[in-house]
Amino acid sequence: MERKIYLKKLDVIEALELFKAKLQETGFFVPETETIPTTESLKRVLAKPVYANRSVPTYNSAAMDGIFVRSLDTTGATKTNPKVLSKDQFKFVNTGGRLEPPFDAVIMIENIHVIDDDHVQIFESVPPFHNIRLIGEDLCEKDMIFTRYHRLKPYDISLLLAAGVFELEVIRKIKAVIIPTGDEIIPPQCDPNDGRIPETNSSLISNYLDELGVVVDVHQPVNDSYESILSAVSKMVLSYDMVLLNAGSSAGSFDYSYHVLNDLGEVVAHGLNIRPGKPTILSLVNSKPVVGLPGYPGSCYVVLDHIVKPIIFEKYKTLPSNEAVVEAVSTRRIFSSISEDEFIRVSLSRVKDRYVFVPLKRGAATMEALAKMDGTAVVPKGVEVLDEGQKISVRTCKSIEEIDKNILFIGSNDPLVSILADMIKERDHTVSMSITNVGSMGGLMAIAKGYAHIGGIHLLDPNSGEYNLPYVKKYLKNFILVKFIRRNQGLIVQKSNPKRIEGIEDLVRKDIRFVNRQKASGTRILLDYHLSRLGIDQSQINGYDDEEFTHINLALKIKRGLADVGLGIAPVAQIMDLEFIPLFWEEYDLLILPEFIEDSRFQLIMNTILSESFRNNALTWQGYNLSNVGEIIRGDSVD
Amino acid sequence: MERKIYLKKLDVIEALELFKAKLQETGFFVPETETIPTTESLKRVLAKPVYANRSVPTYNSAAMDGIFVRSLDTTGATKTNPKVLSKDQFKFVNTGGRLEPPFDAVIMIENIHVIDDDHVQIFESVPPFHNIRLIGEDLCEKDMIFTRYHRLKPYDISLLLAAGVFELEVIRKIKAVIIPTGDEIIPPQCDPNDGRIPETNSSLISNYLDELGVVVDVHQPVNDSYESILSAVSKMVLSYDMVLLNAGSSAGSFDYSYHVLNDLGEVVAHGLNIRPGKPTILSLVNSKPVVGLPGYPGSCYVVLDHIVKPIIFEKYKTLPSNEAVVEAVSTRRIFSSISEDEFIRVSLSRVKDRYVFVPLKRGAATMEALAKMDGTAVVPKGVEVLDEGQKISVRTCKSIEEIDKNILFIGSNDPLVSILADMIKERDHTVSMSITNVGSMGGLMAIAKGYAHIGGIHLLDPNSGEYNLPYVKKYLKNFILVKFIRRNQGLIVQKSNPKRIEGIEDLVRKDIRFVNRQKASGTRILLDYHLSRLGIDQSQINGYDDEEFTHINLALKIKRGLADVGLGIAPVAQIMDLEFIPLFWEEYDLLILPEFIEDSRFQLIMNTILSESFRNNALTWQGYNLSNVGEIIRGDSVD
Repeated sequence: MERKIYLKKLDVIEALELFKAKLQETGFFVPETETIPTTESLKRVLAKPVYANRSVPTYNSAAMDGIFVRSLDTTGATKTNPKVLSKDQFKFVNTGGRLEPPFDAVIMIENIHVIDDDHVQIFESVPPFHNIRLIGEDLCEKDMIFTRYHRLKPYDISLLLAAGVFELEVIRKIKAVIIPTGDEIIPPQCDPNDGRIPETNSSLISNYLDELGVVVDVHQPVNDSYESILSAVSKMVLSYDMVLLNAGSSAGSFDYSYHVLNDLGEVVAHGLNIRPGKPTILSLVNSKPVVGLPGYPGSCYVVLDHIVKPIIFEKYKTLPSNEAVVEAVSTRRIFSSISEDEFIRVSLSRVKDRYVFVPLKRGAATMEALAKMDGTAVVPKGVEVLDEGQKISVRTCKSIEEIDKNILFIGSNDPLVSILADMIKERDHTVSMSITNVGSMGGLMAIAKGYAHIGGIHLLDPNSGEYNLPYVKKYLKNFILVKFIRRNQGLIVQKSNPKRIEGIEDLVRKDIRFVNRQKASGTRILLDYHLSRLGIDQSQINGYDDEEFTHINLALKIKRGLADVGLGIAPVAQIMDLEFIPLFWEEYDLLILPEFIEDSRFQLIMNTILSESFRNNALTWQGYNLSNVGEIIRGDSVD
Repeated sequence: MERKIYLKKLDVIEALELFKAKLQETGFFVPETETIPTTESLKRVLAKPVYANRSVPTYNSAAMDGIFVRSLDTTGATKTNPKVLSKDQFKFVNTGGRLEPPFDAVIMIENIHVIDDDHVQIFESVPPFHNIRLIGEDLCEKDMIFTRYHRLKPYDISLLLAAGVFELEVIRKIKAVIIPTGDEIIPPQCDPNDGRIPETNSSLISNYLDELGVVVDVHQPVNDSYESILSAVSKMVLSYDMVLLNAGSSAGSFDYSYHVLNDLGEVVAHGLNIRPGKPTILSLVNSKPVVGLPGYPGSCYVVLDHIVKPIIFEKYKTLPSNEAVVEAVSTRRIFSSISEDEFIRVSLSRVKDRYVFVPLKRGAATMEALAKMDGTAVVPKGVEVLDEGQKISVRTCKSIEEIDKNILFIGSNDPLVSILADMIKERDHTVSMSITNVGSMGGLMAIAKGYAHIGGIHLLDPNSGEYNLPYVKKYLKNFILVKFIRRNQGLIVQKSNPKRIEGIEDLVRKDIRFVNRQKASGTRILLDYHLSRLGIDQSQINGYDDEEFTHINLALKIKRGLADVGLGIAPVAQIMDLEFIPLFWEEYDLLILPEFIEDSRFQLIMNTILSESFRNNALTWQGYNLSNVGEIIRGDSVD
């Protein structure tokens, strides 16, 4: 079988426009309608304008609780010269009560004095129709209430019921089917260790479409063969409005989707000029959209968001309602492809009266970046380098209110920081904390540049042997340092320490594979400090260049037997059920953006770290000491 | 029975805080949890932090389609000096395929040349783990994936499945019950003409709560008696988390809710210092919130939005996600209560690079204002007059994208304008048109002040007998006037014209009740012009001061027999099945904000009014003439 390499990649806007034009031609966007009871129409879209069948209100009625009166009988009554009305001259009425002759006005209950059952005193003269809601005051019979394509909200429905509209012609729901393809996929509940892939995309796609009001079915997985895919697609286009093939759209030898769609219908685009999202097929079969979605979740999401969603909104004649666009400053230099639009998931927050974003992991395969994103930044093609400090547009996937309450934490990695984030949430659910692990120097520089609210640092000064302050003073004019935890750094080794590793000196042994932390991390600086003290050259260590970005990734590598030893913290060894050889106590502190101490969220953090429950939580782990937690060191430093 | 007058009205923030504090004391906000399958957790809120049960990916795998190779075998290969690998030195692999020794890297399919089944040519030398996704690259076993109180989105669920998390502890759903009270309420499907009130609030409340993720039941309506309400509330608090009494919270004689709640539990607030929304009861019975919601839909909505919703979000530990706040200019002078916060529903749009809003009908009873609102403006207490042109905050209930596409139409009333709005929607569903009827002079002034995109005007100059241009030239330096329709104004009378009315002269007859249009409306100016020509004094006309704001409201008054005759347009007589006596042809034109002609929405309007279908639609009605439609008159007028 011929291997299909992408021939011509379209830009995403171009591909969408072309696809929409083709679908327009086939009549796909012509609204199809159904008639449903008004009571079941929440979130549905009207297919036709709707007119009132009756006026609201339908009769003249009391607008207040009070008494019905004849306005003529009230003439002359004032506060100082009240009038008494007797039995036939008034009638108690509740709000909404129907006006009956001879009465023509209402006096509010608060403004009368009840003398006895047959007599009331009034203190004002009222004109005809005073406090009366007139027929049609809200809505007149035959008024157009809504134009077509109005999406119905809760109060719309009660208005329609009040106006006597009990059935509605609405746009019928789109029915879509997802066909997962591939020999290698298994249900997520199965053990993937035999080399197969848990099929989690159909959950992503079906929940995504469900939120847009699409009825979704998931087909059983189809083998990677031309015949199987052909048979599934041919059947499904007969009973669904939209078919989504998943994972069969890349150029692999078992990917027959392109050939099937090309043979069954018309392929509009094969390959998109975006990153992630390239391996996408847009086609029409039986006049219906059949989309080959990429297998990587990051790519799949971008294509859902930028191709599938606009098509659904076009068919439903509505607009998305849950997004905002802000201009935000990049906290990193970003290299991007000059020939592709790149969609980058980001953490986003307001820092010092501007929005800043931190790019999350960029691989198409990463699901964590999707789960942690606050929004998506687009680096357009033509831009090869977006410098740190430059602004671009970010489309949020949360409300601005939520974004504005997001605390940006940048710096070194420690499991207690995640626990802190959770305990902050426990105390005030409106506040979130986005954690980015870029090492201690990264945290320090983020605060220096105003890119974060908090930096997590543990930086040993090789000259003084002192932690953090020497660095902070060097880079910051004004600073606020909150003492956080002392923690034990040591060697993490296999259970029972089979290689009998005892200290830093052992790292040069030929039978030992080391795993290191990334440059500029506090742990790396600590290692280098001790290597230099001991006169050990880095090149003597087997695996010195093998870097991991977090303690837990480092420990996992050892757990999996891919390395024998690494420098890390005690709790991670405990989490991973590995052996820990304690070596050094170090100080891990929180560097605070000066402007942030006026923020109520800073107090929230202080209250949390000083709480008994935080202490108890920390002390369930090995190797933490909280004796100085919460101490604040302020400085107007030299320089 | 004692009549309960509000004793002490709390501000809405104060009442909410007090209510929340009381609920906090009783433990209402302590999260109650349930364990559910991850696959059914969309939009649910995590009760606990969630950790990965397995790494993602769980094994080293191919990041691309291509061939597995040993990096050592590739040494030295370049574009100009390719290398051939034979049978045992490579293996075809699809993205995701598991890496097996001795292979340690992948070369992309696009970068190889297949010679035959047993030989491929490569053009690059690759290092170990090139194009390999490493174990835990996305997520490490034991990593905290989410903190508690995270609301799950589609991609979150697929990440959890990939991380081997198949069950989740989430916050259980709130169960609420609505108890409609009142002897006068009937199901909306019944005919309300016997003086009873269609019960439409339970639909509003239940749909509103449904959108927030609350499980809602509606109790059958309960009679207005102490015993009935007592019995219903006592039962319901046993099986529901929240009870919402509706319509029993005002001061009426049949409103026993306050006494019931006071006797059964603790009333925290009776009466709120807001408009609308005053007749509200906040109470705790059996440690659960029991809220007496006002009966008027406008009031009910404000209390749902400002009291009930925050309590639900507090219980669910989440934030709303569908709103934005903008500063917007008021197009009207607004008089508000100095002692109450007033919530005003508004139309909102971007006009000339600022947001402007038009207040909608302000009665608590109005449902139409709810249905037509783009957002809510709050006039805080302490402000008695908000001047036209002043800015205040408006909280939208639509996305900014939708607001930005909203066309503001202000001016005279004509049914063809609603039809135009619908036909615009038909052509481009992303564009809406908000119509405000304030008469022709209002439309003219709105354009002069930059408060609208389009003004609809029909203004007769008494001196020249000419329409529109004399007025436009008087008030605007530059103008763009689009000729719209000519329409017939005449007398609308009862079917068969029982009072034998023939012309303006008849209006002075003693046996005739007239109904007029409001001051500064084009129709009023037209009437006054002809009265003065005929030498008729306004005071001679019985009903001259009885004003209606739209043609259809005027016609409805005649239809109901509350008046005999009014001046209006032919199509409205036709819609209402009344008799029409044609008198004058007048010119109804569209005055365009000069900046708006550059906007694509202006072209959309032009295309629509010039279309065959608009013409056909208009000509199905009596009394329209479209001979000049679409003609554009521009002017640089004298000052």
